[in-house]
Amino acid sequence: LNIVVLPGDGIGPEVTGAALDILEAVSRSEGIELQHRDYPFGGAAIDACGQPLPEETLRACLASDGVLLGAVGGPGYDEAAKRGAPRPEQGLLGLRREMNLFANLRPSRLYPGLEAASPLREEVVAGTDILIVRELTGGLYFGEREEGTVSALDRLPYSAEEVERVARAAVQAAKGRSGKLVSVDKANVLATSRLWRMVVDRVAAEEGMEVEHILVDAMAMYLVSEPSRFDVVLTENLFGDILSDQASAVAGSVGLAPSASLSDPGRPGLFEPIHGSAPDIAGQGIANPIGAILSAALLLRYAIGAETAARKIEGAVEAALAAGLRTRDLGGRATTMEATKAVLQQL
Amino acid sequence: LNIVVLPGDGIGPEVTGAALDILEAVSRSEGIELQHRDYPFGGAAIDACGQPLPEETLRACLASDGVLLGAVGGPGYDEAAKRGAPRPEQGLLGLRREMNLFANLRPSRLYPGLEAASPLREEVVAGTDILIVRELTGGLYFGEREEGTVSALDRLPYSAEEVERVARAAVQAAKGRSGKLVSVDKANVLATSRLWRMVVDRVAAEEGMEVEHILVDAMAMYLVSEPSRFDVVLTENLFGDILSDQASAVAGSVGLAPSASLSDPGRPGLFEPIHGSAPDIAGQGIANPIGAILSAALLLRYAIGAETAARKIEGAVEAALAAGLRTRDLGGRATTMEATKAVLQQL
Ligand SMILES: CC(C)[C@H](C(=O)O)[C@@H](O)C(=O)O
Ligand SMILES: CC(C)[C@H](C(=O)O)[C@@H](O)C(=O)O
Repeated sequence: LNIVVLPGDGIGPEVTGAALDILEAVSRSEGIELQHRDYPFGGAAIDACGQPLPEETLRACLASDGVLLGAVGGPGYDEAAKRGAPRPEQGLLGLRREMNLFANLRPSRLYPGLEAASPLREEVVAGTDILIVRELTGGLYFGEREEGTVSALDRLPYSAEEVERVARAAVQAAKGRSGKLVSVDKANVLATSRLWRMVVDRVAAEEGMEVEHILVDAMAMYLVSEPSRFDVVLTENLFGDILSDQASAVAGSVGLAPSASLSDPGRPGLFEPIHGSAPDIAGQGIANPIGAILSAALLLRYAIGAETAARKIEGAVEAALAAGLRTRDLGGRATTMEATKAVLQQL
Repeated sequence: LNIVVLPGDGIGPEVTGAALDILEAVSRSEGIELQHRDYPFGGAAIDACGQPLPEETLRACLASDGVLLGAVGGPGYDEAAKRGAPRPEQGLLGLRREMNLFANLRPSRLYPGLEAASPLREEVVAGTDILIVRELTGGLYFGEREEGTVSALDRLPYSAEEVERVARAAVQAAKGRSGKLVSVDKANVLATSRLWRMVVDRVAAEEGMEVEHILVDAMAMYLVSEPSRFDVVLTENLFGDILSDQASAVAGSVGLAPSASLSDPGRPGLFEPIHGSAPDIAGQGIANPIGAILSAALLLRYAIGAETAARKIEGAVEAALAAGLRTRDLGGRATTMEATKAVLQQL
């Protein structure tokens, strides 16, 4: 297993470090030969070589079996960008496009014992286990822009092909779960949402799967009022960005949520916690490493089909949380290192 | 006070009927001479005359002191729209544009005694009192579209002028409240968000008001995890659509939330509950009329500066809720008529 690690900015290096500790332990016990190497990316790469996605980093990612990413961005880079510097986020968007990572899987699940960490009432949040499938290489993120100080324009383009391939990924995921598929759009306003709805209906019919369509504003409501009624939720790029962050907060903390960004079969994926670079706590050793650790589990599952190894990590995380592991974002005091040790112990 | 009533579709006529009962009672006791007349709008107008915003309806709205709207839309119209019929929503967007309703105020407040109706824990939601100021006549709702079955395109345009006038409205609102202003955008990706942030910063500086910028994905998280820390939240059209529905669910029920859509001083505004037409419960007499009743209070306040009358309605709603009034959306059994009577009694 040959992986590329992109620690990135802020708490990125701290959480990828923790995830690597876990990956190494599981690889040893499962007989997986693990090779990994760090590459500069994001703000760190801007500092090192003036651009957020250096050519060498991209080449290594494309040649790997999978990429483990920490986080990118920070207020210093925002300031510099106002004066014309590149943004760390451009590196992330560039990597998503170059690796053709069109299907972004973002699970949000309430872990047993963590009921009290959710801002929602226990009876509302109990049983919540959502998989958001977010389209990741289209829409407003990749439409042509017109920057300006008098007026500006962003474009939201989608092709039927782009919708179809991510819809198939969502149907596939739903088949492996409860079989309930919800698709979220804004079809009462947007042309791309009407295209989206038409294609999703066609794919679902072909696959013999029922699909319920929900408008994005209503979905933002339901994710708060009845999160446990959802299973697989398919949506476009920006709606997925918003709803997956919301879902992670519902399930207790954004610090717990992993993600897998996948391309066509046989091509490498990218695995990253959904949290940001959290500049306010960077360098203090207190970041929650669980999102990154669970992303490493997804890497094992999707990169080399190492289902047993992936489950071992997920089981160890669940056991550690059930045994009382709580980082600060969960109202506890465990440091990044203590959290990592707690998971290692359960392994 | 000369108002136009647009009952619209689904539960629209039921809730505007309730709001008119209250308006009439308050007008009598406050010595306000109230004149009102219904006009066809939305799906009802498509049925009656083939278009969602008939010329006569528009003329009446423009000549009025204020417009009270129920709700528009329904599944039957969605089906017909696929075969080329106009959509009820086009009527609403047309009206917003023609009346130049650029500032949409959407308060979400946890009423005393309603703590148990929120899906959030009492200690998380206590004290929540948010005013979302949503830009309403720009962005993705009004950009040129390209419909298609192979590909489609929506455009997200903003001008500095459009941002500036709604930013001034938000600053004004914040001055009358706690003075805390948050602006929500996606400036790490969108060109229009960078323009947005620049203009909001300029307006805030001119007005001597501090402003905090939060990315929309993070905001969707915070609205769940710490809603009580926000006061006035300024954002663009589609983000405002999503976040205001989410905020209303946080505060207990979308059925309670009113809205005011305002234009330049001296021009009429539009006042409507933020809930939809709820076809599933339409015609049963069980819809929650509070969102419409509170919208009538906003109409009194903004259309003719009848602050005392507006407060009377708001006080009566608060007292009725505190005395135990609960419609079905709040876990009770009160009908629309019972709820209306409960508020009348408190008046
Ligand atoms: C950093 C940013 C560009 C990114 C996004 O918006 O996609 C992030 O929020 C995410 O969700 O991965
Ligand atoms: C009906 C629809 C077009 C409308 C919108 O998206 O603005 C509604 O959701 C609202 O929030 O008023």
